[in-house]
Amino acid sequence: MSKAERHLALRESLITIGQSTIAAHGLGGLKARDIAHAAGCALGAIYLVFPDLDALILAVNDRTLAAIDAAICASLDCETAAASSADPGRQLVLLSCAYLDYALAHPRLWAALFNHTLPPGQSVPDDYRAHQAHLFSYVEAPLAALCPNLDVAARTQAARTLFSAVHGIVSLGLDQKLSPIPVEELRNQLAAFVQLTATGLRHACFPPVAP
Amino acid sequence: MSKAERHLALRESLITIGQSTIAAHGLGGLKARDIAHAAGCALGAIYLVFPDLDALILAVNDRTLAAIDAAICASLDCETAAASSADPGRQLVLLSCAYLDYALAHPRLWAALFNHTLPPGQSVPDDYRAHQAHLFSYVEAPLAALCPNLDVAARTQAARTLFSAVHGIVSLGLDQKLSPIPVEELRNQLAAFVQLTATGLRHACFPPVAP
Repeated sequence: MSKAERHLALRESLITIGQSTIAAHGLGGLKARDIAHAAGCALGAIYLVFPDLDALILAVNDRTLAAIDAAICASLDCETAAASSADPGRQLVLLSCAYLDYALAHPRLWAALFNHTLPPGQSVPDDYRAHQAHLFSYVEAPLAALCPNLDVAARTQAARTLFSAVHGIVSLGLDQKLSPIPVEELRNQLAAFVQLTATGLRHACFPPVAP
Repeated sequence: MSKAERHLALRESLITIGQSTIAAHGLGGLKARDIAHAAGCALGAIYLVFPDLDALILAVNDRTLAAIDAAICASLDCETAAASSADPGRQLVLLSCAYLDYALAHPRLWAALFNHTLPPGQSVPDDYRAHQAHLFSYVEAPLAALCPNLDVAARTQAARTLFSAVHGIVSLGLDQKLSPIPVEELRNQLAAFVQLTATGLRHACFPPVAP
């Protein structure tokens, strides 16, 4: 193995260990010393691969984005979704339910996407943003079908707003923060709400209502 | 001062100190020793008033619920809101914007409502739940006007789902978790989204869409 290959192999191994640690114990369970021990390397070797633990967490979160992307693709049947015959309201419901299902199956990896905060002054790498944007493109397609007169900027923002709404329903629902709600009822509420948004979009177009 | 009066005065003082500590430093900044010092009492005296710090945090959060309630009342003009002439879509927009404004003005007190978790086995006191329910009643009234055929249970749940959606838009927007969004744009997105939900409700009724 060349030095570059060893570097890459260690990088992959550290991400995999980080991923299983976060999956089992959450972000709070991630300690450099334990990761080095599990990887069979010196503590300092981690910092030859990642500048700090935040960079390792971002790499784990990037894998989580890829896993959500794959889960969405599977549930939408991405080939079919591209066909113009697909019902955009139904597509938005499938997307939201795939998101709920991912959060249910991988609660700590999912939470790490939102609970991890970079130190002040640092910003998320461009390719991480690009993977986020790719996920939002699944929301943008049905929005464009429901509301063809939205320009690209408005559609981009509307997809993020709709995602935030879905995320709020999923996260307060799973945290049982309001009143306890069984998962099947949460799924029904989420589906009904998203369908309602689609109905609203069909009748009135998205942005221009002033508060 | 009788013993009961002293007990009550210390309780109020501890809540006020807890409130200003959380407002300044967040939940993580709350330490029993500092609170006792600020209240001029012995550390043990706190535990004559509250069984543990969680109970003190719940009392602070209960005050936050009352403050949000007052802010909503002021923005809705509660007398007018009760009049049947009020536009329910507009009322939902006003409610959402009042919620955003409270979160903007008191970010750490607002976050403490969601970041505080009771130890396993403990549940939130009934009067705290009642104050939460009173806040949701502001959402339920316009929902009932938009969708008169919802029964009480469905309307209760729909109000919590709509609130969760609004909370998601507010919290991911203020955290700048997706892409940075200026507050005025966030307010416009929130208002447009809630108006859209009201439009959807006018055209299709809330729950019964299967996923």
